[in-house]
Amino acid sequence: MVKIVVDCLGGDNSPAANVAGCVDALNANGDIALVLTGGKEEIEKLLAGKEYDKSRLEIVDAPDTVTGEDRPTDVIRSAKNSSMVRAVNMLREDDSVQAMVSLGATGVLLTGAVLRIGRLPGVERPAFCPVMPTLNGGVVGVCDSGANVECTPDRLLQFALMGSLYMQRVCGVKNPRVALLNVGVEEGKGDDLHKEAYKLLKECKALNFAGNMESRDVLSGNYDLIVCDGFSGNVLVKTTEGTCIELLKMLKRELTSSFKAKMGALLLKGTLKKNFKKLNYQNYGGSVMLGTKKVVIKGHGSSKAIGVAKCIEQAYTAVKNDLNPEIEAIINSNSNTKGDMQNV
Amino acid sequence: MVKIVVDCLGGDNSPAANVAGCVDALNANGDIALVLTGGKEEIEKLLAGKEYDKSRLEIVDAPDTVTGEDRPTDVIRSAKNSSMVRAVNMLREDDSVQAMVSLGATGVLLTGAVLRIGRLPGVERPAFCPVMPTLNGGVVGVCDSGANVECTPDRLLQFALMGSLYMQRVCGVKNPRVALLNVGVEEGKGDDLHKEAYKLLKECKALNFAGNMESRDVLSGNYDLIVCDGFSGNVLVKTTEGTCIELLKMLKRELTSSFKAKMGALLLKGTLKKNFKKLNYQNYGGSVMLGTKKVVIKGHGSSKAIGVAKCIEQAYTAVKNDLNPEIEAIINSNSNTKGDMQNV
Repeated sequence: MVKIVVDCLGGDNSPAANVAGCVDALNANGDIALVLTGGKEEIEKLLAGKEYDKSRLEIVDAPDTVTGEDRPTDVIRSAKNSSMVRAVNMLREDDSVQAMVSLGATGVLLTGAVLRIGRLPGVERPAFCPVMPTLNGGVVGVCDSGANVECTPDRLLQFALMGSLYMQRVCGVKNPRVALLNVGVEEGKGDDLHKEAYKLLKECKALNFAGNMESRDVLSGNYDLIVCDGFSGNVLVKTTEGTCIELLKMLKRELTSSFKAKMGALLLKGTLKKNFKKLNYQNYGGSVMLGTKKVVIKGHGSSKAIGVAKCIEQAYTAVKNDLNPEIEAIINSNSNTKGDMQNV
Repeated sequence: MVKIVVDCLGGDNSPAANVAGCVDALNANGDIALVLTGGKEEIEKLLAGKEYDKSRLEIVDAPDTVTGEDRPTDVIRSAKNSSMVRAVNMLREDDSVQAMVSLGATGVLLTGAVLRIGRLPGVERPAFCPVMPTLNGGVVGVCDSGANVECTPDRLLQFALMGSLYMQRVCGVKNPRVALLNVGVEEGKGDDLHKEAYKLLKECKALNFAGNMESRDVLSGNYDLIVCDGFSGNVLVKTTEGTCIELLKMLKRELTSSFKAKMGALLLKGTLKKNFKKLNYQNYGGSVMLGTKKVVIKGHGSSKAIGVAKCIEQAYTAVKNDLNPEIEAIINSNSNTKGDMQNV
């Protein structure tokens, strides 16, 4: 049994979507047990009448919500009644709880994970690794997507090792093709950081390094993991998301712009629906935080029940497939990585 | 009359597209004169039978092509018979030539512009500023998109001032809303570079500063100019382009995937064609290099005749509307900018 704590506040559709997602996850997988943090009364109301195995669900009353405006370090220290901080503290203190899912403020979650959960031995900095759909039906991971706006070549190598393991262990990708995000594909492109990181990635035997890549290839399906600093990774992921959303909006608008267009849209309904579904990020779970002692998943703020259930399943798979012990092993066996070995 | 030198080699469809674009530009605007650099014989063959004012077109024989694999500084010094280097040298030496258009290797063009053309007094570093279509029918500029992978707050302020002027003078945007690309919209987001740049942009009275923006809003139409370092800007522009191209490819594939879909597509032809046209970067000209003593436009490598003609028209507008004198004036009058005043 894998026990996961789910922060039920902080998302756009919280707590209803979180609670519904928890129920779906419990019903889909008999090996999962959940602890829900949030307003107990409200959660109980949302659970009323729902069918699920009650022995695998527990509620912890923590009715306060953390927002992006709060100063992360202050919140982690003082907002002990918030659903997120309570979940973080539970993950820290309760050995039986193995993973956490939250849709709440990213900065607070990151600070909480670093300060309270701590890094795996040898890991310099935890990193976010969301996964996006490619247009040939596969997926691509991006590590780091925002936890570290400043980077070193060593850190980029660690992101590559952790991300590559994640793509294998949790996303089922064999021998992931790892690319370094750069301003051109040729070796020697970019600033010193990227030139040095290129060398480290190329020399590392534990990686299937595919060289530099340009961001125009992000959805091409030519790569399984994109390695980058958190600033560029953030730009990459949000631009892809934003462009997809705006284009689909435009398309939907045009498809209903006239009687003729509506008729055309009707004929295309099946094929378009299939493709829209493929592009819906809710089907790909959340952004895993790699390098922390326990598994932490940050779900999209706008997640619906299906998105929350995917995050829970993702956390379960990471625990079941020994993601963290494997990360610890590879980081510490790889002679190229120079983790400072000190842990918070 | 504005005299512009056009490098006729180096693009995917060169020299045919370049030559056809030159003819179109001459026919569209009687106030333009062109110098074409490239293989003279081949250019003459392509011009044969075409209608245009021959007194406004001149050919300079320089049949060698520069590629992205060449070391920029070597090329600029030694490849004097290449169409690009000849064009750069002409722009440097011939006072009557006021601007240049090239589709060739970006790195070489940038090096040539910096080493041979030189910066405007007060400008620290030239920057690229491509313009992309937004989905509400407007445009948005991105400065810098790749000339400077490393930046300082002062440079970002200069990019903002130059880009804002460009959006006004060449793209016809009144009082451009300038945003700083960041990992979140709140003040205080990002690393020290972005925190410091935010302050400078906010304090600068010559700018209509709209605060931080996230890259998911790039196509929203909420901003007219996005200010960023060249690495993130490159990621931003190429991700947007790549995502649009991949999505449209997918759409086209689906629209012809079955008889029913084809019928639907037929009904939607008019509305989709209009939108595809709106998204076609060929209609928006090239990426201007801001801060050099003379106007340099880098067209997309895959430009067709229409793209080349747009670049020429863009160069013409920049010269006619005094872009460079205005940039020099604003950079040197703005007390916040600390250009080193030294020029190469």
